[in-house]
Amino acid sequence: MPSAEFRKVGHQLVDWVADYLTNIEKYPVLPNVKPGDVRRSLPSSPPRHPEPMDRILADVDRIVMKGMTHWNHPRFHAYFNSSSSSPGILAELLSAAFNGNAMVWQSGPAVSELEEVTLDWLRQMLGLPQEFWGIIFDTASTSTLHGIVAARESLTDLRTRELGMVGRSELPKLRAYTSELAHSSVEKAIITLGFGMDAVCKIPIDDQFRMRPDALAAAIAHDRASGFRPLCVVATVGTTSCTSIDPVPAVADICEREGIWLHVDAAYGGSAAIIPEMRYVLEGCNRADSLVVNPHKWMFVPVDLSVLYTRKPEILRRAFSLVPEYLRTSQDNVVKNLMDYGVPLGRRFRALKLWFVLRYFGWDGLANRLRDHIRMAKEFAGWVEKHPSFELLAPVLFGTICFRAHPAGMDDEPALNALNETLLQVLNSTGEVFLSHTKLGTHYTLRMAIGHLQTRESHVRATWELIQRELKALQA
Amino acid sequence: MPSAEFRKVGHQLVDWVADYLTNIEKYPVLPNVKPGDVRRSLPSSPPRHPEPMDRILADVDRIVMKGMTHWNHPRFHAYFNSSSSSPGILAELLSAAFNGNAMVWQSGPAVSELEEVTLDWLRQMLGLPQEFWGIIFDTASTSTLHGIVAARESLTDLRTRELGMVGRSELPKLRAYTSELAHSSVEKAIITLGFGMDAVCKIPIDDQFRMRPDALAAAIAHDRASGFRPLCVVATVGTTSCTSIDPVPAVADICEREGIWLHVDAAYGGSAAIIPEMRYVLEGCNRADSLVVNPHKWMFVPVDLSVLYTRKPEILRRAFSLVPEYLRTSQDNVVKNLMDYGVPLGRRFRALKLWFVLRYFGWDGLANRLRDHIRMAKEFAGWVEKHPSFELLAPVLFGTICFRAHPAGMDDEPALNALNETLLQVLNSTGEVFLSHTKLGTHYTLRMAIGHLQTRESHVRATWELIQRELKALQA
Repeated sequence: MPSAEFRKVGHQLVDWVADYLTNIEKYPVLPNVKPGDVRRSLPSSPPRHPEPMDRILADVDRIVMKGMTHWNHPRFHAYFNSSSSSPGILAELLSAAFNGNAMVWQSGPAVSELEEVTLDWLRQMLGLPQEFWGIIFDTASTSTLHGIVAARESLTDLRTRELGMVGRSELPKLRAYTSELAHSSVEKAIITLGFGMDAVCKIPIDDQFRMRPDALAAAIAHDRASGFRPLCVVATVGTTSCTSIDPVPAVADICEREGIWLHVDAAYGGSAAIIPEMRYVLEGCNRADSLVVNPHKWMFVPVDLSVLYTRKPEILRRAFSLVPEYLRTSQDNVVKNLMDYGVPLGRRFRALKLWFVLRYFGWDGLANRLRDHIRMAKEFAGWVEKHPSFELLAPVLFGTICFRAHPAGMDDEPALNALNETLLQVLNSTGEVFLSHTKLGTHYTLRMAIGHLQTRESHVRATWELIQRELKALQA
Repeated sequence: MPSAEFRKVGHQLVDWVADYLTNIEKYPVLPNVKPGDVRRSLPSSPPRHPEPMDRILADVDRIVMKGMTHWNHPRFHAYFNSSSSSPGILAELLSAAFNGNAMVWQSGPAVSELEEVTLDWLRQMLGLPQEFWGIIFDTASTSTLHGIVAARESLTDLRTRELGMVGRSELPKLRAYTSELAHSSVEKAIITLGFGMDAVCKIPIDDQFRMRPDALAAAIAHDRASGFRPLCVVATVGTTSCTSIDPVPAVADICEREGIWLHVDAAYGGSAAIIPEMRYVLEGCNRADSLVVNPHKWMFVPVDLSVLYTRKPEILRRAFSLVPEYLRTSQDNVVKNLMDYGVPLGRRFRALKLWFVLRYFGWDGLANRLRDHIRMAKEFAGWVEKHPSFELLAPVLFGTICFRAHPAGMDDEPALNALNETLLQVLNSTGEVFLSHTKLGTHYTLRMAIGHLQTRESHVRATWELIQRELKALQA
């Protein structure tokens, strides 16, 4: 593309993005499309000849926009939010222009070292000890899988790297312990790695939805007696269903006593530890062997950027390092080649956006915004609690509220579940908000996650009004 | 960031990128930094307070630039090229602004369906049959790992998803077959998945560096007789060392006869199949069970974007699908939720850049550029062959040349290897070019990959002059 055209289209796109972000509330959060609508708007064969950029951009407006779920909408409250802030967006432009790839140090010295430095900054912000070393992966699922592979590698006597795990009758069955509310990625990693579904032992939770350490200890003892061997314990700081925090200090006691690898999934909740008075959420995590936190969730970094920290990078390296001749460099003895610490060989310049975001907002600026989200969530929870037709279903520890409609006198559980499921559908079909759901016990539960950079009290208040209104309409 | 500031900084950055791409040849391809130089230029603690964008951008110039290996430099000839074209770069800006995440269809209808459509376009361009369905992962290493997990899942009688592979004495040892020249990612996947290093059987190559089908058949027969069970065969179209093409039709014959999953690593070479007269490079691949091709390598799409195609998406789905309550949607029965086909749950909007690139260049436009690279590579090879002090070490099938200096009368192999290692160091330290190396047999081999969008004949000619000059200087 000639430079002049790049400038012209680039400026046009920057303005498009500026308008998009300014006017985002004019779009429905969830698009009004049916499966296949977008596909049917596109040609079924590839273009033979070049098309001008203005036609491609016109199709962004005409086709893409009508099928977008707007994650950057301040009233996107589903799952966990993920808002891409302006400095993060601009960094991605630069990153794509560099097209850097830090397979080895030599193929991207700045890419490698900026990753190391920004992850060390983040480590300090989270209050994790100095020996925690971090590396970026695409998602928490990938980070957790790597943590579990490191756990397996730490069981050196099993010699799995060399001999594998297949058909070796002398190997004990391995067990991974995690709470009933752990994210599905834990189980997915266990299945992917060939431990089998049976290898996941789900520990019961207490009335605050936290893993019960006594039950964990009992399960381990029982398993050991039955010939199983513990592979790892995965504790969660901010479960996906209801953001509960497993008692990591007590879990760490057990792991240390038993010599078990402790992985902490703090993908969502970990970010809150950058708020000085919330540092307690990572209490005990200094004793974890590995920990995942996702700046692309609640730290305004565009997807994807998940960080795996580990106190034992050498074990991670032992698990994954494999250096073919064509990737040998003369610096191999004095540098960390990032390809040695995981599955992906290619490693794009993701650290740039984290660097931009941390500097543009500053630690205090980020902490203030997260604090604000939590304050709004607690306020919303207060409204729910005071209202006779709603009830709060879990403590609000971060920015996420679990609740349901529970009109006075209506106590039939299936009917309540049906009511709430309908309420969610009605709310989401307005295009004004997007909430998601979970199940807590037998309760169909509405989840409202407040974590978008642009979410203001007026948005939260409007959503609360909408919810009340729609419930009333349903009952009319 | 206020909209006005976003516009201002955005326009500034677009101009920065335009200048960067225009002037890229003014920068050394490989930076003149030592390990730690970039790190030492950065503060060791995170910023407390917000910093203005102009200071951050100034540090891009001051710190990042001095440590960049410029993958977008037209004289970057190391590894395999990866150039990010302008439409791809601009798409990444948009993609970051959307911050879309197609975990489930509902969370990104356009993200999901554009991925499906563009990958079907690419499938047609590659000449793969209609039943091939594609999904995007970050890198070929990840795609290959997923292909191998599907291979394991296809062995339904092993029930590995449910029961795992650990300590089951009734399970046969599994074996993956691949050539001596297969990419390290195959072995890495096998180790990661707990099959063990022993599970990789490296099949000898012929004098053209291709897997020998007779040796493959013999290895399988021998293994079966010894109680092993084949897991998969991984054939390569364009090996990393020397771009050789395994005889996929003959390999497919064996796999079909034996009932073995065939995975093809066409991460590099596959792209050439979009050139009509080069379609033969994927001959036999219509019979593969899975195949990886990387548009971020030789199709001008910014990293990262690797595609895994499979004829058996249902097996991939069976291997990975795991749907917790909080990710259930009312469309689950009528749509493909992309999270069901792999490890990562979050899935950013990568298809957008592929869509932009395919449309901006058009099929013919892309094919012409690749054709040109191959023509330049063959021309370079011709110069090497004619020169008395150089020799070609492998056939030139794509855009990559394997060669070495071999001055007349100098036949001591260690001396030749030392000479070529020094020559490579000298070349790369000029900052003018970046070549990499491999080993073919006992020969230390220089690799010159021509695949950058901006590489012209003048660049290739200048590099050839430089190589001759530097060799002369070394011999002086």
